Amino acid sequence: MGAARFLRGLLAVVPPSSVTAIVNVADDTELHGLHISPDIDTVTYTLAEAIDPERGWGLRDETWHAMAMFERYGNPSWFNLGDKDLATHIVRTQRLHAGQTLSEVTAHLARAWDLECTVVPVTDDRLRTFVTTERGELSFQEYFVGRQHAVPISGVRFEGADSARPAPGVLEALADADHIVLAPSNPIVSIGPLLAVDGIRDALAHRRRSVVAVSPIIDGAALKGPAAQMLTELGHEASVVGVARLYRDIAATLVVDEADADRAADVESEGMDCVVTGTVMSDPERSATLARTVLAAADHGAGR
Amino acid sequence: MGAARFLRGLLAVVPPSSVTAIVNVADDTELHGLHISPDIDTVTYTLAEAIDPERGWGLRDETWHAMAMFERYGNPSWFNLGDKDLATHIVRTQRLHAGQTLSEVTAHLARAWDLECTVVPVTDDRLRTFVTTERGELSFQEYFVGRQHAVPISGVRFEGADSARPAPGVLEALADADHIVLAPSNPIVSIGPLLAVDGIRDALAHRRRSVVAVSPIIDGAALKGPAAQMLTELGHEASVVGVARLYRDIAATLVVDEADADRAADVESEGMDCVVTGTVMSDPERSATLARTVLAAADHGAGR
Repeated sequence: MGAARFLRGLLAVVPPSSVTAIVNVADDTELHGLHISPDIDTVTYTLAEAIDPERGWGLRDETWHAMAMFERYGNPSWFNLGDKDLATHIVRTQRLHAGQTLSEVTAHLARAWDLECTVVPVTDDRLRTFVTTERGELSFQEYFVGRQHAVPISGVRFEGADSARPAPGVLEALADADHIVLAPSNPIVSIGPLLAVDGIRDALAHRRRSVVAVSPIIDGAALKGPAAQMLTELGHEASVVGVARLYRDIAATLVVDEADADRAADVESEGMDCVVTGTVMSDPERSATLARTVLAAADHGAGR
Repeated sequence: MGAARFLRGLLAVVPPSSVTAIVNVADDTELHGLHISPDIDTVTYTLAEAIDPERGWGLRDETWHAMAMFERYGNPSWFNLGDKDLATHIVRTQRLHAGQTLSEVTAHLARAWDLECTVVPVTDDRLRTFVTTERGELSFQEYFVGRQHAVPISGVRFEGADSARPAPGVLEALADADHIVLAPSNPIVSIGPLLAVDGIRDALAHRRRSVVAVSPIIDGAALKGPAAQMLTELGHEASVVGVARLYRDIAATLVVDEADADRAADVESEGMDCVVTGTVMSDPERSATLARTVLAAADHGAGR
């Protein structure tokens, strides 16, 4: 997950307590009666250095014994949940049932992992991504995990966006931050739901000079996941220019990979400053270097 | 668990589909937001040959990775739940939240383990054992697991007994059964809650000639657990005679171990027939032999 890797790099170069990660929840799902927040968990586990580095999701040294039991009991088995990871979902569900908000639960879990930064869901309200396929709508996880994002889509809908309000602290963080970064995440289904929550897009537009986006598209492709394919399927250009067109109203600067140096002028034609650097975060040092470059670009954008 | 071992023996000597196990639920507890039914699970896992033979509870080849996470998250860690076992509690909780009754869920889980006998909770209503100690009341699991039943008790209360109704099929099974067995379980906190449910004691009294109890007390002690100590603390005699006094109104026959042959006359003085045999179920064959003896005693009691 590009956002989590970027965050890890960022925390290496600024005081962690100064960072607020505003995280997508439209990938959340309910399975086995448990509330699963994949993006929040990936961010939390990554920052806790507890993520499985090979899979990029879930916990390292994980076991899968409960899954075999779910299968025995006729419960869905297409969404893998590790035994340790299950405890996270159980505790989250328990606390939500007890009346806590998702941001309260998320803060509790982050504290338990000794995180010094703030991790906050974009909203405490229900927000769910559905994609339209030839054979009807699928929930995000049905599409992403169940079908391995191998079916073409013709539309995306964020259920609940009409009424979802930003979680406490989200608008304040966007108003007060020295720098705002749109992480190198899927613009459609990772950043898109954030922008669909009431007030977020306006808050970013208002801070546009301090907002830097990092392109998740490198040389027309995503390092991982269906971002490029989704952009194409939904009529966007699967390139840094396509990304610039999605972000130009809310971000002054787009950071693109060296592989896209030849498109920098095209990005600038879309009205964004373009910074060319290495964006492949293959190790923590590269993540930190990218974070430094992004912060400098934000300072430059803000005219400092 | 004596009842589960006895049941396993019974299923070896009669058609499994002819057996209904009516199981205590007053040991049930909620932990981590999950509904845990220890007695139902011990019966189900034992009959499925999936129980851990050393511990006598939980599943064999179990792992404990989720527990360490519960500890991290500040959840109670005094009640051990294995990773596979957790799936059972998750599925039970999910189905209860969806509106199923505990007996419906129990039947689903039993089918998933390919059990041919019927496993039914004594009641679908809330029934919970509390014990009185010098320092106030404790829930059963707080006493049994949390304190390792090492604190003296002065009373037992079955919360919910006023309104708990027998689960569907329970009274019918008691009315129609050829033989009824009170398994070698703790008379106070395992059999006691069954008798506290409206109609059960009367149903047994009505079938008294066909009811055979197996004493869980052998030579003044329980093979496992606090039965003898609880009997003493609550003013009963911790012996087969003490057991006879508790059961004589609802069972015609008490099966006691050879170690108690010298108390057979005393048991008969309490108004029960006494059958002396080996009751220590150290292997499945001994369980089966005991089951045959118990059925013969029931036939004899019923005058067949």
